[in-house]
Amino acid sequence: MNDSVFFTDLYQLTMAQGYYFSKLHEQQAQFEYFIRKTPFEGGYVVFAGLKTLLDQLTDYSFAPAQLDYLAQLGFKGEFLDYLSTWTFAGNLYSLQEGEIAFPHEPIVVATGTLIETQLIETLLLNTLNFYSLIATKAARMKFAAGHKQLIELGLRRAQGNGGLQASEAAIIGGVSASSNVLAGFKQQVPVVGTMAHAFVQTFDDEYQAFEAYSHIYPDQCTLLVDTYDTLKSGVPNAIRIAHELAKKGHTLKAIRLDSGDLAMLSHAARKMLDEAGLQHVKIIATNELDEYLIQSLQDQGAAIDVFGVGTRLVTGGNQGALGGVYKLVALNEQPRIKISENIAKINLPGKKVVKRWFDQEGYMRADTLSLINESQITLFSDPTFAETTYSVAGLEGAAIHHWAMQNGQRTAPASTLAEIADYASSRLALLPAPHKRFQHPQLYPVGISVELRKLRADLIQQKRA
Amino acid sequence: MNDSVFFTDLYQLTMAQGYYFSKLHEQQAQFEYFIRKTPFEGGYVVFAGLKTLLDQLTDYSFAPAQLDYLAQLGFKGEFLDYLSTWTFAGNLYSLQEGEIAFPHEPIVVATGTLIETQLIETLLLNTLNFYSLIATKAARMKFAAGHKQLIELGLRRAQGNGGLQASEAAIIGGVSASSNVLAGFKQQVPVVGTMAHAFVQTFDDEYQAFEAYSHIYPDQCTLLVDTYDTLKSGVPNAIRIAHELAKKGHTLKAIRLDSGDLAMLSHAARKMLDEAGLQHVKIIATNELDEYLIQSLQDQGAAIDVFGVGTRLVTGGNQGALGGVYKLVALNEQPRIKISENIAKINLPGKKVVKRWFDQEGYMRADTLSLINESQITLFSDPTFAETTYSVAGLEGAAIHHWAMQNGQRTAPASTLAEIADYASSRLALLPAPHKRFQHPQLYPVGISVELRKLRADLIQQKRA
Repeated sequence: MNDSVFFTDLYQLTMAQGYYFSKLHEQQAQFEYFIRKTPFEGGYVVFAGLKTLLDQLTDYSFAPAQLDYLAQLGFKGEFLDYLSTWTFAGNLYSLQEGEIAFPHEPIVVATGTLIETQLIETLLLNTLNFYSLIATKAARMKFAAGHKQLIELGLRRAQGNGGLQASEAAIIGGVSASSNVLAGFKQQVPVVGTMAHAFVQTFDDEYQAFEAYSHIYPDQCTLLVDTYDTLKSGVPNAIRIAHELAKKGHTLKAIRLDSGDLAMLSHAARKMLDEAGLQHVKIIATNELDEYLIQSLQDQGAAIDVFGVGTRLVTGGNQGALGGVYKLVALNEQPRIKISENIAKINLPGKKVVKRWFDQEGYMRADTLSLINESQITLFSDPTFAETTYSVAGLEGAAIHHWAMQNGQRTAPASTLAEIADYASSRLALLPAPHKRFQHPQLYPVGISVELRKLRADLIQQKRA
Repeated sequence: MNDSVFFTDLYQLTMAQGYYFSKLHEQQAQFEYFIRKTPFEGGYVVFAGLKTLLDQLTDYSFAPAQLDYLAQLGFKGEFLDYLSTWTFAGNLYSLQEGEIAFPHEPIVVATGTLIETQLIETLLLNTLNFYSLIATKAARMKFAAGHKQLIELGLRRAQGNGGLQASEAAIIGGVSASSNVLAGFKQQVPVVGTMAHAFVQTFDDEYQAFEAYSHIYPDQCTLLVDTYDTLKSGVPNAIRIAHELAKKGHTLKAIRLDSGDLAMLSHAARKMLDEAGLQHVKIIATNELDEYLIQSLQDQGAAIDVFGVGTRLVTGGNQGALGGVYKLVALNEQPRIKISENIAKINLPGKKVVKRWFDQEGYMRADTLSLINESQITLFSDPTFAETTYSVAGLEGAAIHHWAMQNGQRTAPASTLAEIADYASSRLALLPAPHKRFQHPQLYPVGISVELRKLRADLIQQKRA
């Protein structure tokens, strides 16, 4: 049984039954997944979750027990008969997973029958919104951490089973390893671990605890030094262990700071370690870190080699959801629009050509949306403020979408998690730094053509008439 | 294979191996799960997730494929042999699920061997933290909604698979139904659905869409009225449908508002419905609602019968994680403490007696913590500020913990979700209103005995010496 087919809001199914009995269910529909706003007040989104979505949409059909449940809910026999042989056979035209995305542009375009494109909405939104949120948060933290390592330790405060997906998305965004064993076992996530206070408390004193640990992990030993007193007890005991390990040909790997002022303590600990000839022992810092605190610690020259991040990464921290939406833009080749009291909620109708424009050094400079069959143009305007225009003269345009699924089948074997993370990293490198600033980043130009703007205006007028 | 056993941070396993080779793994340990701070700046937590945790801890043991993976990670053969026959056989002494909890007091006490109480930490924290966060958020929203109905529609922006658990926790906190079909199928959650804009857009005009829907759902029809223009098009078309349904002996159930000013639009829509003799047609409102916006709409007398909440409920909204912790408090009957640079992180050591005190009207008035074998006392003091004292003279004390698991076995059949929700509701009713205020609520007294305070002070001094 595929749980994914029930990972949905009930209204998707009641609407599907509505389409069925209105004989509209096999009309050809086009939906677009896009964001209206970048998360975290930042300048971009790292698109993620596609691999997981494709997995979920494989063998996406209803099992007898699921149909029985729908019958209990009052769904009609004829419709359930139809569903019993139905399977998702639609198409997804998508950005590569790990690609950078911006507001207004289609990230994933779903085409197929109305029933199949409608039924997948909740699953698609949940998966892409959450993975992209966390991958983007990780990319921001990695930007702050620079060449220093970033590890993820958030499972205990993650949102339930979402913690498994968060660990995967964090890798895509730039984290190098996770404490999450299930993510390692099931999803190719590299795993990492240190020790907790309970281990230290279990022994009669801190030195004994460190000794026991270093005995079992002589070359993989990270000692947590803040259980009693970081500088008076923890670091001196760690230094003693390091010397004992060295005598036996082993090397203490790291110490971990988990409370107090991380800048001050890391400086003092580094000095003590260096004076003891332990320049190679790394310092890991944890405790409610996010991109702002990492940046601030970096600005203060904190002697931290590895940043361990948890809650504020795996839950998104100050923003717990990406508001990506999935809207009907065409039905039987005819463009469709949704009007709203909120102007920002009006979608861009119709089938579109999306291009990303690069400068001579290979940096991303603008994305553009136009209608198919439009003649080549170089001037585009902002989707919400027509007077702001963007020229792509002198830039080189490239398509950024690919067929991820056709007729319900993947078009290529799934990429590995490491490949996706590498791709994200390579694309982030092409995004100019001003778009990566944490607050008030420079707006990345996403322009629409005059024809697309005209189509939207015409449809609004037509619907309001 | 039980995935739960791998739903953990790697360090739980490396520490377990450390205990094993230090021959400490079968020492008797006591850990406590507690919170240091109430979420959302509120006055309480609704404790939830126990049923799910007990499910996860049933048959909690390692499968061969899991042991192979640990071998790949470098775990030693002798330890893996030990794990291959190991199973969780510990004890949980817990608040009832749905009970109200406060900072500092033990919510769940886990006892058993050091290895078993350590290995479950991450799973226990993830489950109880997330369920309690969402149940508490739901309780706050229900407090604002009063006797009006609250439904949950958040799956599309939930944190991945955590969305399933969020729907369950929301029911515990006071939501009456969810749009989440999988939660209905698997977890006894009552399901509910309306319609989306895409359905309306699919038809040539709004009236046709409404007609088609009402034809299929003549007695369960909720019409979304804001696709084009709420008051000029949506509500008039809904009224027309209601009259047509009435002629055939059916009743339009509700309309849904999803954009614009919900107070203004609900007043205008109510007036139009009433003037058309449709007093029975309910108004459902959705669009980024949380407890503050619900309260504000209530204060303005909005004509809303059902509040539909989504993102800000299922993700916790302004707070995405509950910071509950799980700390070693005793080992082989000896109290243990963790000291910290942050005073708030120092735990209350030792085995404790917890009592909740009720006044003559049955309201909760204070909780107290003392050591076992202490003589009867009535004066307690605040755990962090000794000069603040609480007297329980004239109040009636009762134990609030029960054995939820003994020797790895549940002590009673699992409660149904409805029973847990009823219990939460009955307990919330006993919490005086000043503790339920959204901001700056009155602090609920949690007091500790002089002996417990002395034990903590002695242990700190001893460890720092």
